Amino acid sequence: MLEHGGNLRDAARRYGRDDWIDLSTGINPHGYPAAAPSPAAWHRLPEPDPALIDAACAYYRAPQLLSVAGTQAAIQALPRLRAPSRVAVSSPSYAEHAHHWNLHGHARRLVPYAALDEAVASSDVVVVVNPNNPTGETVAPDVLLDWSARLHARGGWLVVDEAFGDTAPHLSVAAHAGQPGLIVLRSVGKFFGLAGLRLGFVAAHERLLTQLADLLGPWTISGPAQEVALQALRDTRWQHATQASLAAGGERLSQLLLKYDIASSGTPLFRWWPQVRPEAFHEHMASRGIWCRLFREAARGVRVGLPAIEPEWRRLEQALHEWSKG
Amino acid sequence: MLEHGGNLRDAARRYGRDDWIDLSTGINPHGYPAAAPSPAAWHRLPEPDPALIDAACAYYRAPQLLSVAGTQAAIQALPRLRAPSRVAVSSPSYAEHAHHWNLHGHARRLVPYAALDEAVASSDVVVVVNPNNPTGETVAPDVLLDWSARLHARGGWLVVDEAFGDTAPHLSVAAHAGQPGLIVLRSVGKFFGLAGLRLGFVAAHERLLTQLADLLGPWTISGPAQEVALQALRDTRWQHATQASLAAGGERLSQLLLKYDIASSGTPLFRWWPQVRPEAFHEHMASRGIWCRLFREAARGVRVGLPAIEPEWRRLEQALHEWSKG
Repeated sequence: MLEHGGNLRDAARRYGRDDWIDLSTGINPHGYPAAAPSPAAWHRLPEPDPALIDAACAYYRAPQLLSVAGTQAAIQALPRLRAPSRVAVSSPSYAEHAHHWNLHGHARRLVPYAALDEAVASSDVVVVVNPNNPTGETVAPDVLLDWSARLHARGGWLVVDEAFGDTAPHLSVAAHAGQPGLIVLRSVGKFFGLAGLRLGFVAAHERLLTQLADLLGPWTISGPAQEVALQALRDTRWQHATQASLAAGGERLSQLLLKYDIASSGTPLFRWWPQVRPEAFHEHMASRGIWCRLFREAARGVRVGLPAIEPEWRRLEQALHEWSKG
Repeated sequence: MLEHGGNLRDAARRYGRDDWIDLSTGINPHGYPAAAPSPAAWHRLPEPDPALIDAACAYYRAPQLLSVAGTQAAIQALPRLRAPSRVAVSSPSYAEHAHHWNLHGHARRLVPYAALDEAVASSDVVVVVNPNNPTGETVAPDVLLDWSARLHARGGWLVVDEAFGDTAPHLSVAAHAGQPGLIVLRSVGKFFGLAGLRLGFVAAHERLLTQLADLLGPWTISGPAQEVALQALRDTRWQHATQASLAAGGERLSQLLLKYDIASSGTPLFRWWPQVRPEAFHEHMASRGIWCRLFREAARGVRVGLPAIEPEWRRLEQALHEWSKG
């Protein structure tokens, strides 16, 4: 399996301490405070709740959606729904896309964001993460819709992973996912801080959603996940407050890094920067109980998420201070 | 998608009433009363908890296990882990096995329980549900281990779905799943009444479990599911009490049916019988707000699960009485 953030058990095993600050993911550290699910949610087979789809369509402004057991489920399934194709995956980016489009007979290549427009002409499928994880690069919606139309004209797909799109709603093309050839992935894990649920959504043409549902099979979303997500997706007051607090948190993190001469890019949920010796930085932080995300390959650098509370901010600053003196 | 029990929304839509007694599944109506999961379970990426695997190995007496998002996830994945093979699936039985072994280039045939021994000689893979859903047919462990050895001798697999095996532990071959070629599926949904969790386990040789884990990808089990299942799998007192109460409930259901001349087979969690006009029986019950499981095809008949409370038992008896006079 590919390496990911969030693997705090690995950290604990390797460094033998139990006071970790986990900055290794881009998950909102102040997750949605949902009321406990009903007993029936645990006990019954989880039928899909139409109210959940309605709430998600309203929140994502999508014409139709399929609920999936995390964006990951869709990332794994989409390459199985096409005959072998020429696939361009944006790079550096979330590695699971490239990994799964490399299977099932596809001819997959990695394309830098700046070269994606050119790649559209010579591809059947283009995969973009928008905004990008970890670099924060973005593509404007009108550009995406142009790519989607060009790809669709020859039976192709544009896959847009908007897992970190909640804090940049102006970038979303989910509203256009009724048109064939455009597939938009959304995650409940990051903005809502509900990564434990295993719930995401796919916005796409009805026919593709039916194929995807058939492939994924019945009862993919747990009952408790459905109930908790329904609360979160309907709670516009919490959503507005969270937009503001994440924007402030992201800006604070960016400024803190800059204070120690680290120029980062990213989204309100994480900052990333290219780092000359990322292993050394990661080790420096880990030895102080701060678990960052180390990128060893294409996106060679470091990503940090938002600290949850003031003592965590202080420990991060102290560790950055010591790094800058090292 | 295939038809299943538990689809109470369909029932409500078709019959327009809201006082349903749901007997359409074989799920324990008195599910495990778990304490609420920790906030971290909802919010963090769900790393696999080694303690959950330890508890499951102890409960199932299996040498090693992989947690999966319900038995369904394994049923869908296993046919993808073999080159096209000759596959014998027990019939009538849980239809998802036959459905998925019919894909991916396999040559799948349906084999009655009585002819399975013969089918072993001419198959690469044999799939058995033990005890069977819905008929309750069983195969003795020594017979299964013989089949497994014969299949393994030529690189084959025996897949034993023990989803309803908790109430018949003497039938389980999970303890032998260290030997290559034997794959045992277990479900947390039925006996523990936790179908909403989406959690099951696969016991098999380490190498196969690694292949399966790679195919299924990361974070397949939600955090809350892991915490709730850990409580349930460790709670031997609840497990013993539930063995007794389910045995009594199953016997009571069997006797009640017999009182109205219905000779059924099954397990403590459900009773099934071949019914001449199963659609008429199903309709009779549905018009009285009792949702049974109708089998239209191979297992042509009706399956009923356990009523939860005395008023449900009384309504079931009244409906059976009216059927017998009809």
